[in-house]
Parts: sequence; structure tokens; C-alpha cells
Amino acid sequence: MKKEPQQNLHLIFNPKTVAVIGASENPAKLGSHVMKSLLQDDGFRGRIVPVNPNGGEIMGISSVSSVTEIKGSVDLAIVVVPAGAVPGVFQECGKKGVGGIVLITAGFKEIDDPAGAELQSRLAEIAMAEGMPVIGPNTFGIVNRTIDLNASFTPEFSHVERGGVSIVSQSGGISHLLAFMAMKEHVGISKIIGLGNRLNIDFAEILPYLVEDPDTQVIILYLEGLDDPRKLMDAARNTGGKKPILAMKAGSAESGNRASLSHTGSVAGRQEVYKAAMIQSGILPMESTEALMDIARALSLCPLPGGPRMAVLTGQAGPGMVACDTCERYGLQIASFQESTQAAINNLLPPLAIRTNPVDMGPAWYDSAAIKGIMRAAAEDENTDGILLLMMFASANRGAVSYLSDFLLDWRQKKPVVTCLVSPAGIWDDEVLRLERAGALVNLPTPERAAKVMASLWQYKHKTWR
Amino acid sequence: MKKEPQQNLHLIFNPKTVAVIGASENPAKLGSHVMKSLLQDDGFRGRIVPVNPNGGEIMGISSVSSVTEIKGSVDLAIVVVPAGAVPGVFQECGKKGVGGIVLITAGFKEIDDPAGAELQSRLAEIAMAEGMPVIGPNTFGIVNRTIDLNASFTPEFSHVERGGVSIVSQSGGISHLLAFMAMKEHVGISKIIGLGNRLNIDFAEILPYLVEDPDTQVIILYLEGLDDPRKLMDAARNTGGKKPILAMKAGSAESGNRASLSHTGSVAGRQEVYKAAMIQSGILPMESTEALMDIARALSLCPLPGGPRMAVLTGQAGPGMVACDTCERYGLQIASFQESTQAAINNLLPPLAIRTNPVDMGPAWYDSAAIKGIMRAAAEDENTDGILLLMMFASANRGAVSYLSDFLLDWRQKKPVVTCLVSPAGIWDDEVLRLERAGALVNLPTPERAAKVMASLWQYKHKTWR
Repeated sequence: MKKEPQQNLHLIFNPKTVAVIGASENPAKLGSHVMKSLLQDDGFRGRIVPVNPNGGEIMGISSVSSVTEIKGSVDLAIVVVPAGAVPGVFQECGKKGVGGIVLITAGFKEIDDPAGAELQSRLAEIAMAEGMPVIGPNTFGIVNRTIDLNASFTPEFSHVERGGVSIVSQSGGISHLLAFMAMKEHVGISKIIGLGNRLNIDFAEILPYLVEDPDTQVIILYLEGLDDPRKLMDAARNTGGKKPILAMKAGSAESGNRASLSHTGSVAGRQEVYKAAMIQSGILPMESTEALMDIARALSLCPLPGGPRMAVLTGQAGPGMVACDTCERYGLQIASFQESTQAAINNLLPPLAIRTNPVDMGPAWYDSAAIKGIMRAAAEDENTDGILLLMMFASANRGAVSYLSDFLLDWRQKKPVVTCLVSPAGIWDDEVLRLERAGALVNLPTPERAAKVMASLWQYKHKTWR
Repeated sequence: MKKEPQQNLHLIFNPKTVAVIGASENPAKLGSHVMKSLLQDDGFRGRIVPVNPNGGEIMGISSVSSVTEIKGSVDLAIVVVPAGAVPGVFQECGKKGVGGIVLITAGFKEIDDPAGAELQSRLAEIAMAEGMPVIGPNTFGIVNRTIDLNASFTPEFSHVERGGVSIVSQSGGISHLLAFMAMKEHVGISKIIGLGNRLNIDFAEILPYLVEDPDTQVIILYLEGLDDPRKLMDAARNTGGKKPILAMKAGSAESGNRASLSHTGSVAGRQEVYKAAMIQSGILPMESTEALMDIARALSLCPLPGGPRMAVLTGQAGPGMVACDTCERYGLQIASFQESTQAAINNLLPPLAIRTNPVDMGPAWYDSAAIKGIMRAAAEDENTDGILLLMMFASANRGAVSYLSDFLLDWRQKKPVVTCLVSPAGIWDDEVLRLERAGALVNLPTPERAAKVMASLWQYKHKTWR
């Protein structure tokens, strides 16, 4: 008896041999972009076999005319031939016993013509009979940054940084958006998965795989509409909260609903019902792509706060005030320091400064020992569960980030440190990024986004997601 | 009889001669940063005179020992001497008849010691007797990018791009944050003004000046607390809606406000009262620093939509759906195209594509004439009031932005075009920035922020701010 398709998922994300069926050197064909992606930079370290009936070399690699001619096993076949040719290719893949398929070709269930849906059903039968998992059709592909596998038509995905966030999306456009946001904001990614029309691998099948995947720490889902939402909710509940699962559901608008129907063949359901069901199943509903990336990054880098009591340390009063506003709006508290902490801070700041929480460290800008001392006192205080650190660059505080870096590195992973350290390009960026990569902090571009991220860490920990 | 201080504001923002009282070469003194700011890059094109009792050259410029020794008139004196020495300096400035003062020195009304407030009152008397406007004390200074005047302690402000947005802030930290955001997001700035303790120039005085300032198109206010909010509201109302005024009010949180925890209700209430008063006075209340910059940029670059009916043109369905969700959440409508428009689009896209609004232009990626034709048909449609254009880069649509640029340049300023064109760094950025600088579009980093900006343009036009 054949295996369930999802049992082979590990194989297609970690293949030794990849066949590209429909490989091409013609830049107007997706088959050329897929080859480029596999070869991008140092490229995929396994074996790549282009399959094209015309034979010859493709991008310097000898091709074969059919997948059945490949010697040894094929773990992943990427299929980019025209829709009509796909059933034949699937049968050959079955005969060869390939581990699984990424079907990039479009023109199936998502088109208005019922012939598209019929063709997709036929493919599903072949794939199920052979126990082959199929990502797609109508997808850009999959990426596993952990092993440098870029099985997509977008070579630039190979430039996304490696890390613990995995993205699963029903929309190729949103996957591209999130991946490019990750590049810009240095979010480390493990997998990018375009589910497309979900022939036999849907959210409910991919989720358990990612929850067990040791390279994935945080899972992002982008949903439009599901045929069977309960299946996803059950799958999420069954993971037992082992990893954070963040989801954004589009399609609240009437017009968007029309688009969804024709986009990936499903109707987007009622937004509020989805939201409630997600929360009950342990999925964190997110309201924007920006929040999705901010919070996923923080969850992949930060320890969780043990409580809602924050120390707010600022280089200037204004950003501290804005952060406090946001903290209280999202259910965090501004900690009351222990007496010993307050005494230590009072020793380090002049009497006329704002020394209670939020602490204005401005007067200590020139004094590395004072800045470090304030930070240490606030961090070690038993009444604080996390630290929000906000500093805008000015000539007088140019050294402030480096003054703090030893302490931040020592302190890392003890309590969350979420920062808003902002300077013109080229001043603090590299140092802040180094600290973030070392797990010493998570930096956001505005005080509001920093405070909101901290609130989300607490809501996740406390299971009080709203 | 002396003039009202605010009558001299034009002079201090457009001085011919600037005196720096407390100029220094010692990098530990703010007086050195101020000199650096004035000399940064090509520097201020007027005359700079350092004033320092020790005499000699400061950064290559001969100094004088007192402002009274300067030959010819002095339009602006930047004062960075210790607090105790400021009254004497003010008297000399009065004697010299300087146009106005930027008082960077801190240690006045903002400190706990009542002596600070007393000293400030003394300064106010001298300044009022002489009719001298004073920006500060306790400020980073002022910047007028239009004439390359950087009268602040932050030389990096000279790298902010020139444009029509002016920022007035009660917090130096927030001014720095907004200026650095502007640098990153290429928002063109005219003036950055730190009001500090507002000796005799408060929001109510600066607002009428900026409304009449031909270099300012959009005004940003960042407020914490006002002694007399009605004065600002009256000043705003008196401008008659001549220019957009955006305001963010911080201090809703107890802690941020330093108010006692038992006063929750009244403080939260105050925030609502501020918001209502702002709307009544024609000030647009903003909920975050991010929204503040996004919407100010759009208002400085874009024509306003004549109505709420949007054409949503997307390169991929997902981002279009997210944009439609956001449009409808904020009161925009997805336009129904005229028959002729729909017919034109149907001619340009294959039958199985999503051709009604939102239009998925994906199938036309390779076809510059089709992309341009769809854009033109949607833009010229009498049923559309604005265009949201969303495209995520992929190998197949690399040329899409350049296909559209001629049309976008021709079309500029006819109806607003707000875009979310996202690619890895170095692909579309320069082209998009060129189009934005030419006034052909405003580009935002996510579909939600693009749609929200469009909704804000409509709310401003329609006076339905919420």
C-alpha cells in the first residue's frame, strides 16, 4: 500500500536529486528561471537534472528527455511544462517513483473553464495512487534556505537570510512580498512555500510537517479561503502549541472575495468566524503583513516575557512616551522598580532627570558606565519582565549602542529586549544587526512597532491573544 | 513699539547672518556640533559668526567675543552657553537687535527645580521687551532644508531630502525619529522645528507662519501636552484649511504622562477630547509616527481623489485582495468600471484572467502594451477616482515598472496613483523613486499602507476624518 503523500514532505524539502521537467535556456520560459534559481549563487548542493525532450545541455548541465531516464532515485521533480502535458509527466513521475512534485504550471482549478478543474482532479488521482505529495499547481514553488534549495521561479529568493521563520502562503504575490520584506528587515527564513491550488498538500498537511521540522521555529500562514477550514484548525490544535503559528486571513472585502474565487478557486469565508476559530485552535490572527513579519521575527529571536511589566529606557523622553502609550493600549504595564533599582538609577542620573520608569537616559549619554548601569539595574529588577530600549541617534550619543553591547550580549535570552534604535544609514545599523543576529535584541523602526511586538510576545506567552 | 515676536519668524528661518553664541571646537560641547551642522556638506550659504569670549578661529572662522561686536545685522543667534549665562546673552542680543534666537541650552522650565522656571520667565521678559522670537529653550534647534540652514546640534539633518513637509515637535527625540524616517523613505522636508520649552513661540505661533510659508505644503505637529490647547485649535481653525495639518498627540498612558494610576478615566478621556477638538479645528489626528510620515508624504506629492472609487491593479491577486480589504475598512470603494473600460481590459487580458476590478495583470507581465493599456483604461475611466497599483517583483515582470513609466509621467497629478511596488534592493528602487520625485506616484512598502494612504487622501479631501 502507498504512503500518504504528506509522509514524503521531508524528502521534497531536503532532496538529494532534483529533476526540472520543462527546464529551458529561453529566458521567456519559467523553466529557465527555475534552473537559474537552483544554480543561484553557490546553488543547491545536490544533483540537478534538467528534463527536456530536445535534449542537449541546459545551463551547462546535460539534460535527459524523460524523468524515467534518470539513473538513481529522484526526490523532487519540479514541473513547468504546459498544463496539457502535466498528466503524462505525472504518470512518468509515478513510474519513476519520484519522492514528490512541485507543480509550477498554472491553468487548473483557478481558471473559469471547468476543464481546468477536471484536469486538476485527474492529476490528484494519479498523485494519490502513487502517494506523491504535490505542492501546487499554480505556485512559484518552494524554498528551503536551510539547505540552499531554491525550487522556485524567483532566483532572488536565494538572497533571503537563513533563520527560523517559515512562510506558507496561498498567494505567490504575498510570499514574494513577505520574502522581500524579510530581505530588507533581515528576518531569517527557513522555508517559503507557495501552496497554489493545493492538489493534495494543503495547510492542514503542511502544518504538522513544519511543527516537527527542526529548522522551523515560527510558522507564518497567509490564507485567502479554505475548502475545509476545520481541517486546518484541527491540525493546529493537534500541534499542542509546540511552535507559534501566525496567520493572516485576507478576503474580508466583497471585491476581494470575488478575486479569491478566481484566484485560487476558493471563496474567502467570514472574517470574524475565522478569527475566533484561529484563536481557539492556538493560531495567532494577524492584522497586517507588517505585523506578521515584525512578530514572527521577534518570536524567532526573543525569549518570552514572564509577565507584562516593562522597563522603558529611553534616550529621549518623546519616544519613551509614545512607547508607553502603545504598551498600555496593548495590555502591558510600566513596571514599578524595586527600591534598590531606583536607588541605583538615582545614583547614575542627575537629580533633575526623569529617573523613574520610563527612564530618560539622555543626561547619561556621554557616560558609558551610567548607561550600562541603568540598563543592568532595570534588567535585573525582579519587578520587570522585559526591556524596551528606545534611542534616536544624536551626535552626543553616537557611542551609546556600543556602550551597551557587552551587557546586551551577556544578558541575551534572559528577558526580552525589544529596541527602537534609529540612526541615519551607516551609523548604528551594523552594530544593531550584529546584536540582533546574536540574539541580544530585536530592533523595530518605530517606538509603536517595538512596543506592539513586546505586547505580542506577552500575549502569546499568556495565551491572551485578541 | 516693538513687533510681536512671531513677526520675525521669517527672518530666523531665512537668515543672512547667523551668530553661534557658545561656538566651540571641543567635540564634547554642543557648540561644536552646531558649528558642524552649519558647515555640513556645502553648508549654509550666508555668513556664520562664531561667538566665544576666548576668541580665535573656530572651525576656520574668526570668532568675536560678543554678539555686539558683529558688524552688520544678525538675523539669527543660536545660543548654546550654560543656562546661567543665557540672560546676559539675551540682553546683548537685544542690544544688538538680532532678529531672533534659537536657544539650545537646557535647564529651565523642564527641570524639577523652580529656579529653572524662574530663569525662563526672566528670559521671556527680555525677549518680549525686545520683540525677539525664541525657539526653545531645551531644543535641538531648527532646520530649513529649503535654504540649507541646519541650525541644530545634529549635522546629519543636512542629509534629509528637500521637499514640502515641515515638522514641528515638542520632542527632540521624535523630531530625530521623523527626520531619520524621512531620510530612509525619501520624504522631502522643508523645516524641522524643535519647540522645546516654548519660551514665546508655541504651536499657535508657528502654525500661521508655516501656513503662509511658500516652501511648506504639509505640516506635521507632534504634541505632548499644551498649557492652552484652545490657542492652537483657534490658530488651526483660522488657517481655513489652506494646508493639511497632521498631528500626533502622545501621552495617553498613565506612566507616559507621569499621572497617578487612579486617574485612568480622566486621562484617557483627555486624549479623546484632544482628538475631537483637532478634527473640529481641521487638524488631522494621526495614530502613529508611521502613519504620520506616510500620509504627510502622500499629501505633499499626490493630487487628491475626487471621490472614493478606486481602481485596484495588481501584478498578483493576493496583494490586490489585501489592498481591497484595507480600502473597504477605511471607507473607499472598489470602482465598477465603465463598459468601455471593461471591454478594453477584456481585449488586453486572456479570458481566464481576473479582468474585473481588482484587475490581475499577471497574465500581461510580458506585454508592455497590455500593461500600459490596462493602466490607461482604468485611469481614464470616469468611474474611478484613484489608482492603487500593486506589484511584487518576479523574474517575469522585471520590466513592468519601466513599461508603465511613460504613462505614469504623462498622467501625473491627474488622479492619485498610490503604489506598492516591491522588489529586492537594487531592482526597481531607483525607477520607483524617480517616478515618485517626478510626482507620478507615491510608493508604500505594503498593500495595507498603500490603501490606507489612499483612504487618508480621500478622507482629507472629503472632510470625513475619523
